[in-house]
Amino acid sequence: MLIGNRTPTRVLTGDRPTGPLHLGHYFGSLQNRVRLQREGVQLFLVIADYQVLTDRDVAERLQENVEGLVLDYLAAGVDPQETVVFTHSAVPALNQLLLPFLSLVSVSELRRNPTVKDEIAHSQQSAVSGLMFTYPVHQAADILFCKANLVPVGQDQLPHLEATRTIARRFNDRYGPVFPVPEAMLSEAPLLLGTDGGKMSKSRGNAISLSATADETARLLRGAKTDSDRRISYDPDQRPEVSSLLLLAALCRQTDPYTVAEEVGDAGAEKLKLLVTEAVNDYLAPMRARRRELAQDLGLVRELLRRGNARANQVAEATLTEVRDAMGTPVY
Amino acid sequence: MLIGNRTPTRVLTGDRPTGPLHLGHYFGSLQNRVRLQREGVQLFLVIADYQVLTDRDVAERLQENVEGLVLDYLAAGVDPQETVVFTHSAVPALNQLLLPFLSLVSVSELRRNPTVKDEIAHSQQSAVSGLMFTYPVHQAADILFCKANLVPVGQDQLPHLEATRTIARRFNDRYGPVFPVPEAMLSEAPLLLGTDGGKMSKSRGNAISLSATADETARLLRGAKTDSDRRISYDPDQRPEVSSLLLLAALCRQTDPYTVAEEVGDAGAEKLKLLVTEAVNDYLAPMRARRRELAQDLGLVRELLRRGNARANQVAEATLTEVRDAMGTPVY
Repeated sequence: MLIGNRTPTRVLTGDRPTGPLHLGHYFGSLQNRVRLQREGVQLFLVIADYQVLTDRDVAERLQENVEGLVLDYLAAGVDPQETVVFTHSAVPALNQLLLPFLSLVSVSELRRNPTVKDEIAHSQQSAVSGLMFTYPVHQAADILFCKANLVPVGQDQLPHLEATRTIARRFNDRYGPVFPVPEAMLSEAPLLLGTDGGKMSKSRGNAISLSATADETARLLRGAKTDSDRRISYDPDQRPEVSSLLLLAALCRQTDPYTVAEEVGDAGAEKLKLLVTEAVNDYLAPMRARRRELAQDLGLVRELLRRGNARANQVAEATLTEVRDAMGTPVY
Repeated sequence: MLIGNRTPTRVLTGDRPTGPLHLGHYFGSLQNRVRLQREGVQLFLVIADYQVLTDRDVAERLQENVEGLVLDYLAAGVDPQETVVFTHSAVPALNQLLLPFLSLVSVSELRRNPTVKDEIAHSQQSAVSGLMFTYPVHQAADILFCKANLVPVGQDQLPHLEATRTIARRFNDRYGPVFPVPEAMLSEAPLLLGTDGGKMSKSRGNAISLSATADETARLLRGAKTDSDRRISYDPDQRPEVSSLLLLAALCRQTDPYTVAEEVGDAGAEKLKLLVTEAVNDYLAPMRARRRELAQDLGLVRELLRRGNARANQVAEATLTEVRDAMGTPVY
């Protein structure tokens, strides 16, 4: 995959290690990453283990979460020979980019960043940590250390990427051309709701994990919220819960939700749920089998992380050397 | 030197590489550092090469400034066998401490820091960079990476150190005892004015550099501002310029300014200036000779920086390992 017919594409994306990935993650991004990888794109997947510092519950299960994330990646088809999977905290040279980058943004620009603004609006301002406040700069370091030129984002995340683009441009203007100005890869995540009809989220218990068993999946879907109309139809506006189930089945079967709706016809929600359960379990079965196998020996997962971290450090040190050269920082 | 009769003292201090050190620096801090070193205190001297990033003029002469600073240190008696002299930008593991530390302070605490407040008041807020805004956290990383338990500060810098103390305490409370809570070593810098009667500062051209020649020193002192009273007396309130010259001579001769004043008697400012010139040049002569000799071969200076940086990296990596362990960050 080429941008402007010249530069090979390098993509940075990643996850916060807050718990197992669910179907929303899978159809929203993980599947797409695997597709990119297969197209020959160089992927860097950052496990943002520092950005969960302030959440004590998460911090306590950090190792489990990190290794679980890698298992999810591998099960979904991420190939560690092709893709660099690394933990943020293991790459000091990446983190050191924060310092020059912090010098390139003003306090008022940081304050205007939508994520930071949201955080300030939702919590008391006094509760916003310096880590959250400087988040756009951390993100710039994550993206630019590996010179990613493409970043998958949802519509609402465009302003984040703009901060990174600004930092890259200002650095290049001031010190010389070191960084690509990364482009957004707008990805439309399918609107999958949780089984309670709300936003799908691990913490609400309404999400089907990639790593759930077939029985757990069946149980969760049996309890899914639907409506009382026995005639099943795809109508996201009027029937969001039923439509989300249809969409899920369609994604798993690689068909469209209207076709699935026709198949159920007027057999009602119970039939729909059975169909969705089968579709999900069939689709995930090979991934889950791979995941179970890989989970037998976490030594392999750890070895992959070691290698990914070593590679990320190599890349980060090379970039930091270029940065120091461009800035004229004497090196001893 | 012991604190609480148990812990050996470790001191962190340093300079921004903005130009040659002058007599104000020498009698205000450098002399004291050398004294501490002779008393067996483990000194870490950071050359804050990232904190001058935003000053383009300084950045252009960075290497010259950094190496000049080391020459000043060595000339003044800093022993690189005893004292670790290092450049901030060369120690990624130190800089990585920023991330956990940023999570321990709030935006409003950063905003209340006096240096940051000053900067916001003096410039447009929009001009305050993220680097300046997070300065207290950088300082905490500088101090805590080497577990310094004593930091030389002037009265006005006490609030800075308080930010470091807060971060050390919060880290220890949250993750377990890793950091000493450093104490302030209040040092009273003698009030030496520049030769124009203003604050001594390289950029005003009113300061005598350690590295100036005897002739340059004589010329600068010949033009020093005094007053028209031929009777020379030490009276900092009423006669600040004359008193500053008396104090300078006294510091060089290791006597007190009253004694110097008596010696000049009513021979007037011209006599005073000759006496001060002689005192300064005599005092600095051995340092200047040593500096000239060292400046012959900057290879030695660079080798010392390499060794200092290697040592600082060792210390920083050990601390970062402890930090990761305490926080439960999985390491791969």
